Amino acid sequence: MVATPEKATAIESISAFGQARSSVEGTPLSSDELRKIHAYWQACNYLAVGMIYLRDNPLLKEPLKPEHIKKRLLGHWGSSPGLSFLYIHLNRVIKKYDVDAIYLTGPGHGAPGVLAPIYLEGTYSEIYPDKSEDEEGLRKFFRQFSFPGGVGSHCTPETPGSIHEGGELGYSISHAYGTVFDNPDLISVVVVGDGESETGPLATAWHSNKFINPIRDGAVLPILHLNGYKINNPTILSRVSPEELEDLFKGYGYTPYFVEGSDPESMHQAMAATLDRCISEIRKIQQEARSRGTATRPRWPMIVFRSPKGWTGPSYVNGRKVEGFWRAHQVPLSGMNNNPEHLRMLEEWMKSYKPEALFDDTGKLIDELKELAPKGDRRMSANPHANGGLLRKDLRMPDFRKYGIEVPKPGQSEVSNTQPLGVFLRDIMKMNPQNFRVFGPDENTSNKLDAVYEVSKKFWIAEYLPEDADGGELSPDGRVMEMLSEHTLEGWLEGYLLTGRHGFFSTYEAFVHVIDSMFNQHAKWLDICNQLSWRADIASLNLLITSTVWRQDHNGFTHQDPGFIDIVVNKSPDVTRIYLPPDVNTLLSVGDHCLRSKNYINVIVSDKQLHLQYMDMEAAIAHCTKGLGIWDWASNDRGEEPDVVMACAGDIPTQEALAATAMLRAEFPELKIRFINVVDLFKLQPDTEHPHGLSDRDFDSLFTVDRPIIFNFHGYPWLIHRLTYRRTNHKNLHVRGYKEKGNINTPLELAINNQVDRFSIAMDAIDRIPKLKVAGAHAKEKFKNEQISCRHYAYEFGIDKPEIVNWKWPY
Amino acid sequence: MVATPEKATAIESISAFGQARSSVEGTPLSSDELRKIHAYWQACNYLAVGMIYLRDNPLLKEPLKPEHIKKRLLGHWGSSPGLSFLYIHLNRVIKKYDVDAIYLTGPGHGAPGVLAPIYLEGTYSEIYPDKSEDEEGLRKFFRQFSFPGGVGSHCTPETPGSIHEGGELGYSISHAYGTVFDNPDLISVVVVGDGESETGPLATAWHSNKFINPIRDGAVLPILHLNGYKINNPTILSRVSPEELEDLFKGYGYTPYFVEGSDPESMHQAMAATLDRCISEIRKIQQEARSRGTATRPRWPMIVFRSPKGWTGPSYVNGRKVEGFWRAHQVPLSGMNNNPEHLRMLEEWMKSYKPEALFDDTGKLIDELKELAPKGDRRMSANPHANGGLLRKDLRMPDFRKYGIEVPKPGQSEVSNTQPLGVFLRDIMKMNPQNFRVFGPDENTSNKLDAVYEVSKKFWIAEYLPEDADGGELSPDGRVMEMLSEHTLEGWLEGYLLTGRHGFFSTYEAFVHVIDSMFNQHAKWLDICNQLSWRADIASLNLLITSTVWRQDHNGFTHQDPGFIDIVVNKSPDVTRIYLPPDVNTLLSVGDHCLRSKNYINVIVSDKQLHLQYMDMEAAIAHCTKGLGIWDWASNDRGEEPDVVMACAGDIPTQEALAATAMLRAEFPELKIRFINVVDLFKLQPDTEHPHGLSDRDFDSLFTVDRPIIFNFHGYPWLIHRLTYRRTNHKNLHVRGYKEKGNINTPLELAINNQVDRFSIAMDAIDRIPKLKVAGAHAKEKFKNEQISCRHYAYEFGIDKPEIVNWKWPY
Repeated sequence: MVATPEKATAIESISAFGQARSSVEGTPLSSDELRKIHAYWQACNYLAVGMIYLRDNPLLKEPLKPEHIKKRLLGHWGSSPGLSFLYIHLNRVIKKYDVDAIYLTGPGHGAPGVLAPIYLEGTYSEIYPDKSEDEEGLRKFFRQFSFPGGVGSHCTPETPGSIHEGGELGYSISHAYGTVFDNPDLISVVVVGDGESETGPLATAWHSNKFINPIRDGAVLPILHLNGYKINNPTILSRVSPEELEDLFKGYGYTPYFVEGSDPESMHQAMAATLDRCISEIRKIQQEARSRGTATRPRWPMIVFRSPKGWTGPSYVNGRKVEGFWRAHQVPLSGMNNNPEHLRMLEEWMKSYKPEALFDDTGKLIDELKELAPKGDRRMSANPHANGGLLRKDLRMPDFRKYGIEVPKPGQSEVSNTQPLGVFLRDIMKMNPQNFRVFGPDENTSNKLDAVYEVSKKFWIAEYLPEDADGGELSPDGRVMEMLSEHTLEGWLEGYLLTGRHGFFSTYEAFVHVIDSMFNQHAKWLDICNQLSWRADIASLNLLITSTVWRQDHNGFTHQDPGFIDIVVNKSPDVTRIYLPPDVNTLLSVGDHCLRSKNYINVIVSDKQLHLQYMDMEAAIAHCTKGLGIWDWASNDRGEEPDVVMACAGDIPTQEALAATAMLRAEFPELKIRFINVVDLFKLQPDTEHPHGLSDRDFDSLFTVDRPIIFNFHGYPWLIHRLTYRRTNHKNLHVRGYKEKGNINTPLELAINNQVDRFSIAMDAIDRIPKLKVAGAHAKEKFKNEQISCRHYAYEFGIDKPEIVNWKWPY
Repeated sequence: MVATPEKATAIESISAFGQARSSVEGTPLSSDELRKIHAYWQACNYLAVGMIYLRDNPLLKEPLKPEHIKKRLLGHWGSSPGLSFLYIHLNRVIKKYDVDAIYLTGPGHGAPGVLAPIYLEGTYSEIYPDKSEDEEGLRKFFRQFSFPGGVGSHCTPETPGSIHEGGELGYSISHAYGTVFDNPDLISVVVVGDGESETGPLATAWHSNKFINPIRDGAVLPILHLNGYKINNPTILSRVSPEELEDLFKGYGYTPYFVEGSDPESMHQAMAATLDRCISEIRKIQQEARSRGTATRPRWPMIVFRSPKGWTGPSYVNGRKVEGFWRAHQVPLSGMNNNPEHLRMLEEWMKSYKPEALFDDTGKLIDELKELAPKGDRRMSANPHANGGLLRKDLRMPDFRKYGIEVPKPGQSEVSNTQPLGVFLRDIMKMNPQNFRVFGPDENTSNKLDAVYEVSKKFWIAEYLPEDADGGELSPDGRVMEMLSEHTLEGWLEGYLLTGRHGFFSTYEAFVHVIDSMFNQHAKWLDICNQLSWRADIASLNLLITSTVWRQDHNGFTHQDPGFIDIVVNKSPDVTRIYLPPDVNTLLSVGDHCLRSKNYINVIVSDKQLHLQYMDMEAAIAHCTKGLGIWDWASNDRGEEPDVVMACAGDIPTQEALAATAMLRAEFPELKIRFINVVDLFKLQPDTEHPHGLSDRDFDSLFTVDRPIIFNFHGYPWLIHRLTYRRTNHKNLHVRGYKEKGNINTPLELAINNQVDRFSIAMDAIDRIPKLKVAGAHAKEKFKNEQISCRHYAYEFGIDKPEIVNWKWPY
């Protein structure tokens, strides 16, 4: 059944609180159940206020005094009561229907409303034994909240049962959907704050319902929690008409159910009736699809829950409206030290929850209420899906070596670097059918990873058309996830990993900046998790950055931006890894390593086009294991101190540096050149800065202490300086890279404009090798002329000269 | 009238092309009009194909040969026919109703469909005379497309009439709404590709219709162009049921009109009837509101336009479906050199448009068709709103000095740095009522800029509640724009600036990363515009980054990220500026400078909390003019070579560096310290790298060539190394900054964790001043103990010691 719009539209005013209004009729709670569930909620609200205000006297056994109050009041009261209201009602249906559920809190700032029920159901004390279920434990539990050395005011990694901090807004829905992929029995309940609902990533993530297969995937139950206000403003969705709201969610493909009001008794009944309906609808959808064996897209239920901001808190403070208004957002009462009236109001407010009737003498929740919570792993705070490492199984991996290509001689043949990786991913997918997914914004074919479709199509459960049969590669059984929203993909993948599975995300280099902020937040999450012994290891987030700058000559300036890795290097070295494999076999070796790793974000930069191949598989493995190294076949220094070090990182820069090396060797046969290729970027940093960093000694022995180094880099050149500024020979390091000189170009012309082309690199070397200061003038002029001639050719024919395109390493 | 759902839902299949189906009945075009408008469209399609394929023989006067074909085929045919179809129909209503309209193309990759009508209406030849309206001009026009030295394949800045490149997807709708704020007569027509519609920024930008005042603002007419496919995939919105699609847009608050089909004749009639309806509905809404004088939120019209991808192109190629399928996305035919059949098909395809009947002997569009386009500025390609600098008026500015504060002695009193700026902005807003807006994601009050509300409230036109009267600060006349979507705000602001107005955007430091990619794209746009003499100067984009890392101790780790400026420094120095004013008067001086500037993105980093004040207004102006300088009052080197240079940038780091300086001076009265504060970050770079850069000589005279420099920096420390690695004294530069060591802290504890606190800085100095190696041991131990004691205090009381909080400069 769908929502009953007569009811929803009957709401006369969007702020008409009072008796509950609901799409679902019924009063499923007995009076005893109602009394208990309300008492449990009172206990939660009591704890939420306690966390925000109290450093002592947690049970108010003595009159409240200023010294019991924290000196700095932090936390967000506004959404807390609604969050615990939902938590408790979910507990009821978890027990009633034996539901396997986790809880994601978009408005993570309302953590008091989540921490409270987690503490009450015992999980908190199990994980943090000093926060025991007694008066002393409660005191510590209150005191640590938003307190140095304690826990933050969001659903941080320290929060049992949380996989979503809700610090930065926008990703709750996509996270939730990621958790239920291949988790057929899981229901992820996700609360979306009406503030968060204004963000872009959230607004498109509602469409994730088109990416759920009711047979093999679980269900997401989204709850839009309209409490009307952000920090200081009303929210959009809380002020549109009920008709628009209903149309919007029907338009997103859901069946919206409305629960609106403020009167606790009727609200409890309405929420209970609505959750009963939603759970049974989810079960019905799943059972029908599973017994039928064919997956079609249903209308999944969702709930619009409208309750007052700061519900049950002070209605008015200093004569100004608080409950149900934006003033309830953070701390409704303050200045207790010099405002006895506020102190009195706080005490009255806290006592309104009747703590003496909720907690026994020792400070523990009374048994009658304790029983309301589910037991063991069924507690949302102890559900192993929310500590996904507990469920994580190692990927079954084929031997990556067999996907490699023959490279009898370096630099002779061209192959797409990403294509064999696609075959490797295909077989991983085959061996891990319910444990691995591939993500990409409509680009897996464009990025040459389309071999995966041989095993798993693109997931598609919306309408099909006859022509899809011819090259559509669509299937409701597919596990390749494609949507033109990097935000949604990243959120799905994070949710999938955080619940213990594995994944691989490939995307356009320039547009990975779209998810800079999501990367930042996931890196921070992982960094904190590393400090929590109870959080089990999860699979790394593997991000292949392709369609890279040097082959975006045809798409132009907007598609040229290699700066994502500049963001990556700002995050903790404990969780960040960056690789720039130059060819097929190194990419396979790196890919294998990344897919086996845990707790990192691995960023792999590799273009999809045809590129020269340099290393056979054994050489590639050795090279990737070291992370960087001298390519002897390209060098002629034979263990002596070279005249110049030619270094490079990235596919095209490697090719151009090699071509420059060949040109220099042809012109100056006596010149001693050492050629170094870098795959693992953090090798360049000192070992004191990053666990992958080279010791100064090793660095110096490779890069010398006084010879010129010409470094041809894939990204913005300054990043190399940033990583190496402490190295002995940094003063002789000359880096080329992308410096925003692009438009519509040919590949070589784009390289020339940014001086990463072979001619520029060769001329750079001549300029910096003392013995060529004079002797190199002629060669330099020759190179310059060749460069000009290449540019003219590009302008004339729109392509690069065949001898450039077909260049091979000549030695 | 609203859409007629009977019609929309009557569509049996979402791919049922053929005769047009439309929400609006009627056949407004006479047979002569129909014939001409179709011929004009044929001409556009002919040009679009020509751009993609031809380097010669532009009018097909001789048989098509391989040498006439470009060697590299680039461009996107798929959406081009639909884009020019819309363009032409807009031309009709522009003439019929004398509409002032511009055209934004979300799927900018379909530039051939936009460039074609622009060329045909003469604007292209006016701006680029060599692309004249004759055979030779046409040849050049074809050849330059997606060709080195020519123009890219999107609606790049080189495209007359474009303010939106459409390279990166997601921002078309927010850009369009920004253009019509305070432009009551303008209608911005924006095409949203169904690919783009999957992105997050786009999905929430539909809600921009809640931010339009029909009295003083113009109108946006969004057209969702469903051609069904991305590169390789169907799109979500093209495959949901017509009912869902209609619900979605009704839910977003629009009246959706549907035009769907492929039969040209009926599609022309349907689009003409629908555009007539939309224009008259927009006019009616505006006239009613304007005559009534009160603004309420109407349901604005929007159009869902469903046409085949690659419409009118080859239906099948190599036996596989192309027209109406994803294979039409880019280049339907290729390999002409060795595929005579494809060459023949191309010729047949192009000739199907009957060029001989469209162009006269000289190659010019025949007069009968020429007349269809509007004249002069009414051409969308020549509309001055799309070259906003032509309309830009300088801001009227009060003297910023009068908003300054008295600072009789440095480092004695604390004031919120942003609050006086808010007063300054208030008065700018007062003096420029229709030319200036302030943007922020629900944070202008939080960010202490709330003085602006005295002159202009937050814009709000959705429902009002009684309680809004008490502190709501809402008004349908407001020009402070608040929505919890950084994407939408940034898009609005860009649209507002690109059409010649001024603005100011303040946002949270950590979450400005949400718009990293939008910043990148706007910087690239500005960089290219600087190279186009016909593009007039526009106002700079002014971005205040506040709620900064060092005062996010209470919000915790997720809210701590000063890395946005690392993104900024990657972009062209011609368009980027970064300022870190440490106090009120420097912030005012910087703010004044930025608001007067043109063509830049100015990033100002300044926290909102109470901070020590250092400079009176005259000193502040002098300091900001230089961009960095020695603070004599904090230094005691008196023109001699100092023992150490204490440098800093940013409010909190400045305070801590000063406190460290005071501690060192107290311990070592003989020690000569030079104190340098940096406001203009690019001063640190060499003048060869950035126009603001200091010469090496000036840099050396400030920072010495051999003395230790302790630099306390606001952001990630490596940025300072990146800017200064070429400086003489770089080897002695020691930088402290944020290094991802945060959680829930007090301000001082957060500083200690990242070693930017006074104690760490003082100890760093002792470690690096040779004469203190031994003599400093005692002081170092003392500082260490004080640091530990401060940390203990924070852990005990949750706040910092009063002597830290109340610290003042003691000299």
